[in-house]
Amino acid sequence: MKLIISPRAPNPRRVRMFIAEKGAALPEIALEAIDLARGDQRAEAFKVLNPMSRVPVLQLDDGRGLAETRAICTYLEGLAPEPNLMGRDFEERAFIEMADRRMEITMLGTIANWIRHGHPGLANLEQPQFPAFSASQGQKLRGITTWLDGELAKQPFVAGERFTIADITAFCGLEFARGLMKYRPGDEGLQHLQAWRERIAARPSAQAGA
Amino acid sequence: MKLIISPRAPNPRRVRMFIAEKGAALPEIALEAIDLARGDQRAEAFKVLNPMSRVPVLQLDDGRGLAETRAICTYLEGLAPEPNLMGRDFEERAFIEMADRRMEITMLGTIANWIRHGHPGLANLEQPQFPAFSASQGQKLRGITTWLDGELAKQPFVAGERFTIADITAFCGLEFARGLMKYRPGDEGLQHLQAWRERIAARPSAQAGA
Repeated sequence: MKLIISPRAPNPRRVRMFIAEKGAALPEIALEAIDLARGDQRAEAFKVLNPMSRVPVLQLDDGRGLAETRAICTYLEGLAPEPNLMGRDFEERAFIEMADRRMEITMLGTIANWIRHGHPGLANLEQPQFPAFSASQGQKLRGITTWLDGELAKQPFVAGERFTIADITAFCGLEFARGLMKYRPGDEGLQHLQAWRERIAARPSAQAGA
Repeated sequence: MKLIISPRAPNPRRVRMFIAEKGAALPEIALEAIDLARGDQRAEAFKVLNPMSRVPVLQLDDGRGLAETRAICTYLEGLAPEPNLMGRDFEERAFIEMADRRMEITMLGTIANWIRHGHPGLANLEQPQFPAFSASQGQKLRGITTWLDGELAKQPFVAGERFTIADITAFCGLEFARGLMKYRPGDEGLQHLQAWRERIAARPSAQAGA
């Protein structure tokens, strides 16, 4: 298997951190980097693997391309069920999926719009950019981060009592905002979220794709 | 169990269509409608069930609220595994999840931005609206619908040879665009997508939540 990534992009980082948490339970997965700034994702050879022109893509040994971050994680969790990151039965799977989707669609999605429509360095990926929309998304981010701060005052991890894929999604999303927008939850008084961030950043898997 | 919905909204409709496809395999699920225009989703009693203030929410018999459309479907698929809509093993689950995410994040997400930022009737749900962003999203929709039309020239359903959750997501997304924006793939020459739409619309489950 081969994972096609772009260095430092948040979604490839999610899969790399997921793989690092699985450790030796997974077979070796080679990495291949493409250059989004150069437009590699629009090359025909890449679009055979993912017609959406996005990374990451997991190329299976039979040649097929499996795209979409969370779908790749579903596959890897099936290959290596432990340490479990997505739920052991359907009820736990559903509640972890709820938490993960909140982190992805509501938090990371808002961060991505904030950055892609507002940061000059992303102008080659998002055309046209709408700076006023970016600013509005930056404001909306406070709704979800404030809620998440309250959750993390009551429980150690995003989905509850144990580390799951939802922590990976949240961490990689917030690191994307930290890197490009100097966003730091503690600066807005979100101390529980900041403390959780420091705990997750101390895990060895947090270095994967950083 | 009780499903809290808003009539005709696309995400509650996805769960209702999923439930209708499962048929007698699922226990009876009561429906409760709230009024988004009146702001019911921001009432404290609702936010206990879903702090994101969104429908649908499945209230379990123990009182807990399970939100996020696809997470609700994961739970229901666990309760009633047949007819199977999300994959029988992890490999099939991963590829159906990839297809479903493309339909949700890339297609329905683009449709939702097109409508929510551009339609006067949605101004109470999306503030501020950015009409130029809406127009840009309407343009971008052609990328994914054109690709999907090509897929449906080669295979009968969105994820391949059989009906899955990805067909439900795609259908409810396109019906949302049809209802509010009079969008019809056939008008843009996308005959395979239009023919698929007519086949899905003929299923009894397509009436649920319409």
